[in-house]
Amino acid sequence: MHPAERVLLGPGPSPVPQRVLRALAAPTLGHLDPQYLAIMDEVCELLRQVFRTRNALTFPVSGTGMAGMECAAVNLVEPGDEVIIGVNGVFGTRMKDVMERCGAVVHALEAPWGETFSAAQVAAAFAAHPRARLLGIVHAETSTGAHQPLEGLAAIARAHDALLLVDAVTSLGGHELRVDDWEIDAIYSGTQKCLSCPPGLSPVSFGPRALARMDARKTKVQSWYLDVSMLRKYYSGGGGGRVYHHTAPINMTYALHEALAIVLEEGLEARIARHAAMHQRLRRGLEALGLNYIPSRSLHTLNCIRIPEGADDAGVRRRLLDEYGIEIGAGLGPMAGKAWRIGLMGHGATLRNVDLVLAALGNCLGRSAAST
Amino acid sequence: MHPAERVLLGPGPSPVPQRVLRALAAPTLGHLDPQYLAIMDEVCELLRQVFRTRNALTFPVSGTGMAGMECAAVNLVEPGDEVIIGVNGVFGTRMKDVMERCGAVVHALEAPWGETFSAAQVAAAFAAHPRARLLGIVHAETSTGAHQPLEGLAAIARAHDALLLVDAVTSLGGHELRVDDWEIDAIYSGTQKCLSCPPGLSPVSFGPRALARMDARKTKVQSWYLDVSMLRKYYSGGGGGRVYHHTAPINMTYALHEALAIVLEEGLEARIARHAAMHQRLRRGLEALGLNYIPSRSLHTLNCIRIPEGADDAGVRRRLLDEYGIEIGAGLGPMAGKAWRIGLMGHGATLRNVDLVLAALGNCLGRSAAST
Repeated sequence: MHPAERVLLGPGPSPVPQRVLRALAAPTLGHLDPQYLAIMDEVCELLRQVFRTRNALTFPVSGTGMAGMECAAVNLVEPGDEVIIGVNGVFGTRMKDVMERCGAVVHALEAPWGETFSAAQVAAAFAAHPRARLLGIVHAETSTGAHQPLEGLAAIARAHDALLLVDAVTSLGGHELRVDDWEIDAIYSGTQKCLSCPPGLSPVSFGPRALARMDARKTKVQSWYLDVSMLRKYYSGGGGGRVYHHTAPINMTYALHEALAIVLEEGLEARIARHAAMHQRLRRGLEALGLNYIPSRSLHTLNCIRIPEGADDAGVRRRLLDEYGIEIGAGLGPMAGKAWRIGLMGHGATLRNVDLVLAALGNCLGRSAAST
Repeated sequence: MHPAERVLLGPGPSPVPQRVLRALAAPTLGHLDPQYLAIMDEVCELLRQVFRTRNALTFPVSGTGMAGMECAAVNLVEPGDEVIIGVNGVFGTRMKDVMERCGAVVHALEAPWGETFSAAQVAAAFAAHPRARLLGIVHAETSTGAHQPLEGLAAIARAHDALLLVDAVTSLGGHELRVDDWEIDAIYSGTQKCLSCPPGLSPVSFGPRALARMDARKTKVQSWYLDVSMLRKYYSGGGGGRVYHHTAPINMTYALHEALAIVLEEGLEARIARHAAMHQRLRRGLEALGLNYIPSRSLHTLNCIRIPEGADDAGVRRRLLDEYGIEIGAGLGPMAGKAWRIGLMGHGATLRNVDLVLAALGNCLGRSAAST
């Protein structure tokens, strides 16, 4: 078993720094070892800094990004609760599905794939469904590359006593994201995108309004594995009150610790600026090749472009992989065969990778910037 | 962050071989990369060999052992289903809780902690609750060290058209376990016990009767993350039919691949015999120190002993950790303060570790085999 050294420029996982791989391979400790608990406490504190929050309950769920989504849903929603979910891609669609499995009555706020929602649209949805108790929205829609503005949404939700739940899987560590300033009540992400850690954990954060909602539940959380009322006794027990719940993925916690340290060594502002600059450079290059973006407001971290007329979708991706060792993403769902997704996330968002993927894509398409 | 090199002789995680740690740190591939899919297919095939099954649907759930338990429950049970669950320790108690969260009507078959169930007791439970659709039982109760015999249970369950679900978290790869021969319909385990891989995945296997039960469901599985109707399209899609569900924990899959290869290089029979021999040696040594086992039928993989009168529970464990770097387990639940749990699992079940822990424990207790 000898995995190749790919250049991971798809929708995630993103390239993992050697420092993180080395941390991953550090000796395994017990999950109740004082050394491990200290490392876990540090991970939670580093996550607070990256989320820009003071939320005590900030920790990595022991599963990949979708486990974070499910963790938020099962804890914040009870059967019969009305919720408004923004649906404009695969992940909004999934959030609707996950919420329905929790017994929620979902009012889908829909937009064409690739588009985002305005504050006015969100306000109208609450006007139509004033009993909605939660607004769920995807900050970075990995399936379309659309970048949803979040400013102002919390005020609308709060005016209706609703929580704001945000999917930040493809934005945390790559895009401006301010959990406390933007009054986000609950948020989840993944490790394998802009944090450049392998997949396996899902960072989440719950604010005081989310905790109050959980404390007021009338029903038991339907998932034992993701039940925050128990998880919080392990992750924020502190002071000798820590209670065993389940065995955490020890070595993945080491890797996340190192990945977060790297994020903060670079600095969040510098990192976000780097993602913006690399996105701009890629965009100029793609447009010079005659390639067009699908979303009106593109993410910096994920670039979703229309496959040009006559190009062989699978053939081009196979050549990129076989000849260059470069992975880019195919279209998902209704965008299958219509879109390519080029990720510039975390450790992968470099000048070297941008110029490489432009050269490789130009070659595979038989186009050059000069020829168009 | 420099985790110490502990000798992990608690209830898990167990010591991880360097080969597995090196595999863990191999370059991260994309979860749809053909190379990764080949590795995942191999992992599923290796798991079949270790489970001794031909079940097509055998794969690692993307979470730790409790996620495997929850995966079995949410897929096999629908609201209102009657089930019989063996409750004689923490993990049977948890299985009851998880089942109830799925809406099951649980008939608890109870035994004192440390004891196991006879086939006659199981038959009596079915006689009392003939509509029970599932029997859930813990093969290796990690909280008490009790070893539950499984032979004959499937016949009782089948006579009532019920499924047999087995928790094999602390037995897979360390104890005799024959999924097909024993007609187990569904089973889950963990990677961090007798497979000696870090925690983060939960191997599961579902047989044809379990699949038929799932196919006949009237309700949607309440967990999206653990919904086998979707997971099977990824894990056993094959032939071009593979469908993306969620991002699997890529590097953990490498580690499990290597861990399973090591299990099969040793050979299952030889590995099980080694666990038996090391258990016998430890037992002789502990008894020579005047220490007594709690369960009537002890696991080989986990040795649960009564803390002797006058010994300082936390003080002894702290000395073992601080002075020797040895981790043993405390008592769980009602056994807190009353039991120590010494794990001899996988890579940890060695002559070196047995003699070391006996010497260290004798020293910390101020006892020697000669003095008793």
